[in-house]
Amino acid sequence: MQQFTPAEWQSWERFYRANFINSLTGFKSASLIGTINAQGVANLGMFSSIVHIGSDPALIGYINRPIAAAPHTLANIKTNGLYTVNHIQASFLAQAHQTSAKYPDEVNEFKEVGLTEAYIDGFNVPFVNESQIKYVLSLKEIVPITLNATFLVIGQIEQVLIGPSLHPTTDGFLHLDQAGSICSNGLDAYYHTTLIDRYTYAKPGKTPEHLNY
Amino acid sequence: MQQFTPAEWQSWERFYRANFINSLTGFKSASLIGTINAQGVANLGMFSSIVHIGSDPALIGYINRPIAAAPHTLANIKTNGLYTVNHIQASFLAQAHQTSAKYPDEVNEFKEVGLTEAYIDGFNVPFVNESQIKYVLSLKEIVPITLNATFLVIGQIEQVLIGPSLHPTTDGFLHLDQAGSICSNGLDAYYHTTLIDRYTYAKPGKTPEHLNY
Repeated sequence: MQQFTPAEWQSWERFYRANFINSLTGFKSASLIGTINAQGVANLGMFSSIVHIGSDPALIGYINRPIAAAPHTLANIKTNGLYTVNHIQASFLAQAHQTSAKYPDEVNEFKEVGLTEAYIDGFNVPFVNESQIKYVLSLKEIVPITLNATFLVIGQIEQVLIGPSLHPTTDGFLHLDQAGSICSNGLDAYYHTTLIDRYTYAKPGKTPEHLNY
Repeated sequence: MQQFTPAEWQSWERFYRANFINSLTGFKSASLIGTINAQGVANLGMFSSIVHIGSDPALIGYINRPIAAAPHTLANIKTNGLYTVNHIQASFLAQAHQTSAKYPDEVNEFKEVGLTEAYIDGFNVPFVNESQIKYVLSLKEIVPITLNATFLVIGQIEQVLIGPSLHPTTDGFLHLDQAGSICSNGLDAYYHTTLIDRYTYAKPGKTPEHLNY
């Protein structure tokens, strides 16, 4: 095994270190978070730190970088109390990646990168029209992580939208590969996925079996 | 678009709802967390909620379910202060899935499922020998999430081990697909990945380009 020490990665150039450390958490989602500011300007940004917190109530978290590095999304969420999460398909991946550029607050990233705002009744917050799996969250808690001035932002799912061709399996599962949702790694790498298997619920003394849904 | 409301998913059977809600966060890593208890018994469990928190210092978080549902890993981390994260390859995926069965604290899951403990100098905590990408963390903070009695457990990376055939690219990135790390979705689905592309760092007014590393 190659062994790497903290002294080693602390000596590396900043982006080299960021690429390396960001690869270690493994594959992850990359989704677009949509918000709207007090002036009614829509904002769209890519986030790859979305994490499941609970199913009942349905709580989702994401890590927001320090305010100085990533101010707009969190400010809009605080003001409006609502935000959307939109899965990304390969068909608009380059546009999605481009939302991570540092645009001023008055710029609408949807228009800037060429994606389409969509709204549903009762929720004044933009979805990405092109996205096949998306949902709106209401802010529940912003947990400061004092170790590095980041935040765990927790929201509760209020509505879910799924494209017409994808249906939950008979046990509620969504085949995200069939929806075309991409997967990411590190700061800038994106992947298609191919199902290996689903397994039965693990119990002591029982070998996991293929789940046929 | 198909639209789903909270009233709908609250009316669903518990596992149907869990499958559906867990699919919404998108693809994620599934890794094995290795710990050791006060009696020296190794513990191994699968976690799919690992999240990057920062690169300098190198901080990684994971969500631990309520204590009653998932007691051993967190108790061991509190006692020992150290834990390992081990990527999973398809070659030992069924064994890895089986670690999510509820074994008593005195059972060593490595032995139970047929994986091999490995140790490095200076760190009394087990790695998974079969894993090609793995690292040891020291506990930094346990943040209670009072909304649903879960915890964000944050550790700092102390050492990284990478198999002999995988090397960081010239910009520090790790091609996890080449290492064979799997990707997951929902409670029980696992995937291979295929690289679509890496893109250049996004800047306003500049189109993202293919990154050739």
